[in-house]
Amino acid sequence: MTSTTTYTSGVFALETMDVPGGTETILRGGRHLFPLLPQAFAGVGRIGVLGWGPQGRAQARNLRDSLAGTDITVTVGLRPGSASAADAREHGFTEENGTLGDWLAVAADSDLLLLLIADAALAAHHQEIFAVLKPDAVIGLSHGFLLGHLRETGGDFPAGHGVIAVCPKGMGDSVRRLYEQGAEINGAGINSSFAVHADPDGRATDLALGWSVALGAPYTFRTTLESEYRSDIVGERAILLGAVHGIVESLYSHYRLAGDDEVTAYERSCENVTGPIARTISRAGLRAVREDLDPAGREVFDRAYTATYGPARELVAEIYDEVADGTELRSVILAERRLGKREMSRIGGSPMWAAGERVRARRAERELPVEPFTAGVFVATMMAQVDEFAERGHPWSEIVNESVIEAVDSLLPYMHARDVAFMVDNCSRTARLGTRRWGPRFLAAFEQIAYPAAELPADQDLLTAFGTHPAHEALAAASKLRPSVDISVV
Amino acid sequence: MTSTTTYTSGVFALETMDVPGGTETILRGGRHLFPLLPQAFAGVGRIGVLGWGPQGRAQARNLRDSLAGTDITVTVGLRPGSASAADAREHGFTEENGTLGDWLAVAADSDLLLLLIADAALAAHHQEIFAVLKPDAVIGLSHGFLLGHLRETGGDFPAGHGVIAVCPKGMGDSVRRLYEQGAEINGAGINSSFAVHADPDGRATDLALGWSVALGAPYTFRTTLESEYRSDIVGERAILLGAVHGIVESLYSHYRLAGDDEVTAYERSCENVTGPIARTISRAGLRAVREDLDPAGREVFDRAYTATYGPARELVAEIYDEVADGTELRSVILAERRLGKREMSRIGGSPMWAAGERVRARRAERELPVEPFTAGVFVATMMAQVDEFAERGHPWSEIVNESVIEAVDSLLPYMHARDVAFMVDNCSRTARLGTRRWGPRFLAAFEQIAYPAAELPADQDLLTAFGTHPAHEALAAASKLRPSVDISVV
Repeated sequence: MTSTTTYTSGVFALETMDVPGGTETILRGGRHLFPLLPQAFAGVGRIGVLGWGPQGRAQARNLRDSLAGTDITVTVGLRPGSASAADAREHGFTEENGTLGDWLAVAADSDLLLLLIADAALAAHHQEIFAVLKPDAVIGLSHGFLLGHLRETGGDFPAGHGVIAVCPKGMGDSVRRLYEQGAEINGAGINSSFAVHADPDGRATDLALGWSVALGAPYTFRTTLESEYRSDIVGERAILLGAVHGIVESLYSHYRLAGDDEVTAYERSCENVTGPIARTISRAGLRAVREDLDPAGREVFDRAYTATYGPARELVAEIYDEVADGTELRSVILAERRLGKREMSRIGGSPMWAAGERVRARRAERELPVEPFTAGVFVATMMAQVDEFAERGHPWSEIVNESVIEAVDSLLPYMHARDVAFMVDNCSRTARLGTRRWGPRFLAAFEQIAYPAAELPADQDLLTAFGTHPAHEALAAASKLRPSVDISVV
Repeated sequence: MTSTTTYTSGVFALETMDVPGGTETILRGGRHLFPLLPQAFAGVGRIGVLGWGPQGRAQARNLRDSLAGTDITVTVGLRPGSASAADAREHGFTEENGTLGDWLAVAADSDLLLLLIADAALAAHHQEIFAVLKPDAVIGLSHGFLLGHLRETGGDFPAGHGVIAVCPKGMGDSVRRLYEQGAEINGAGINSSFAVHADPDGRATDLALGWSVALGAPYTFRTTLESEYRSDIVGERAILLGAVHGIVESLYSHYRLAGDDEVTAYERSCENVTGPIARTISRAGLRAVREDLDPAGREVFDRAYTATYGPARELVAEIYDEVADGTELRSVILAERRLGKREMSRIGGSPMWAAGERVRARRAERELPVEPFTAGVFVATMMAQVDEFAERGHPWSEIVNESVIEAVDSLLPYMHARDVAFMVDNCSRTARLGTRRWGPRFLAAFEQIAYPAAELPADQDLLTAFGTHPAHEALAAASKLRPSVDISVV
């Protein structure tokens, strides 16, 4: 892993972070670094942001605010007739001040061009965009979809251009919100990975680090576009969105069938995950969830954990294979064609979400305790993803950010504030489609395989592996690199 | 459609069947045609059957029994060390009498070679098999998987060889059982489609028809390998196996949450589908399910039907796209690699199947009435598949066999006799894997989208479309072509 995660910068002071089996070179972020941005962006006069989806909307605003007072202009490029133009104008990107334009015109005029349009649009139009680039323009991505698509279709990035990625480990909306909170607490933000895929003139690393700092990343770690792509697409189908949707729906039914009323079942399932469990993991790590339970609770946790780990691991491995093979991306393209202009199927209309409203209304009354069965199921699914990523050779920063930190600090707060649709449908279309594909698999496997097996005694080997897992060390190291701040979701 | 479904035979007397918008040429089967088999198989001295899975096991036995007393030998070919050899020997295929051998030796020695090994094995080994064929050997398939795989990988069938398919519209086990029942009731059996993919010497059509008659098909209709492949792989993922699994699991939870005890919930869900609903459709068609209800029951049926049709249709369309694109086959190959020697995840372990035992024990006590809600959900899902297949241009015989007849006459009797695993896991590995992938999608869509929507008034346009649907005419025409006989599942 050394070759991937070790690097140098001519602009920023890097640090070394201890991870299991070695170290990773990382950059700790914060607003005190903004004065270094012009140096990091040397040679860049215009940054073009194509797209006004969740990431485009957040990144264009963060970049503009971070670069205020410099000579660097941030311009948003949209397709002709884009429905997003009005919102972009409302946020100050206008034709009049030269910061809003046609996407191909913006592409032709940018020194650093961030491709943040939807994946299907990127698949359909990347060649038109590549054709108009300035000779030394650098291409920026925020996830690896395009690499996967180019491989699948036998294409490539245009020769001679730098290709970098900065990939916030959180949804676009949280990238903006925590950045704003960073005005009060320096360093609040969403961690990012970065990748240098092509670097013809040696500028790539500092450009990527500057971009990440300007977005507000508390810490930035290095990966490859391939590794980022896999962990990103798998993670959102697994514990980040798809699996957690399957978990809360299946647990709600489980508690209802055991006799709970709707409000209690909601509190023991969804509310427990988004509330006390996420909070405990965010503040004290994964082991604390189990350690804080009484002996009877631990016994329940242990049975739920060991019954869930196997079926969850099988599903994460299946998702990983499909993503690595490219079938998952082909499915996304097929789905986009089928959907056309029609909206995706609705999620969040099942009976449990109605109960959620009543639960949120009475939240102030008392603090919910961690529900041991729910905790065992959730933590086991998280660890299944951690183990699959580790087996497939991902850097530890990527593993813990993509499996733990993004869940508890960026995404679950959205489901806590409203419902599953508020969390999922604020993410990319690729993520939204993947959630709809894979959530039901977790739901069915847990209802039909895991929960019946949780009647059996716990598997002690699996529990020992959990107790002594190197992920705890990596997570603790990552947690030290960012200020303790809860995202404010309105 | 005329070019596909119209053809002539030099051996058998064909009939014309009326279907919506035209006619199809079909062959009515029966044991009285067995004397014509030597003529249909002219030039064939040895039929090799590779594989002893559900289809290989049934077809080798039926072919041998139908050809008893002729000069044609049926030989089974297995891989070295195959665990199936003992069972093949028990059924009279032995090395001593020259009807059991190494698969490549059998392939090299056959005039008609039926490739009935598992799809993953076929994907891995078809080139070795093609390499040893006799110069004028004809290749026989029982579904279109290999065509899909060859397209996906840029391969082709070997030039100069005939390529035919005979595809029983039922699981292998039922192909054998109903054939045996055919000794009492002439014509009992499983309908088959056939396809002629390559016909260098003009023998292909009669070879295929002879093969189908020898298997015991009550009627045989023509399709293309491509059309068969798509409808076969989609159908088993939808109403035949995957969707019906999702239906019964989601309905069981639905009734349990509404207050039913376990036995009642099982009777209203699974038992209702496999019992009175399947029986009514088999004997009197799809409309009869609704017409036999009282007005209050029809109102419930209508709401369930119209709430379910949309989500079901979306899922069938998604499956169809994935199958046509090849992604579904890639997923199967990936799954086989991941599984290796390990067994597939268990289905049928959820709480509802335990209740099933108690239900079966008290079956004799009384006749269950059709449950209107269950019937609406099931019939809507069936019609969603019918409509998707019709829109994609499949022949009507293929549509009604692959969506209705195979379900009620071949597959559901197995779930009725025991449980979902007895039905699903008696099918091909491709079907078993597909059921595990897609069943949960139907389960989740119905629980989360359809059932909540069934509280709303019914959509009258959808009901009118159902009442006047051309599928009813096609199904009635197909039903006239076979004797009324219930499969005996022990």
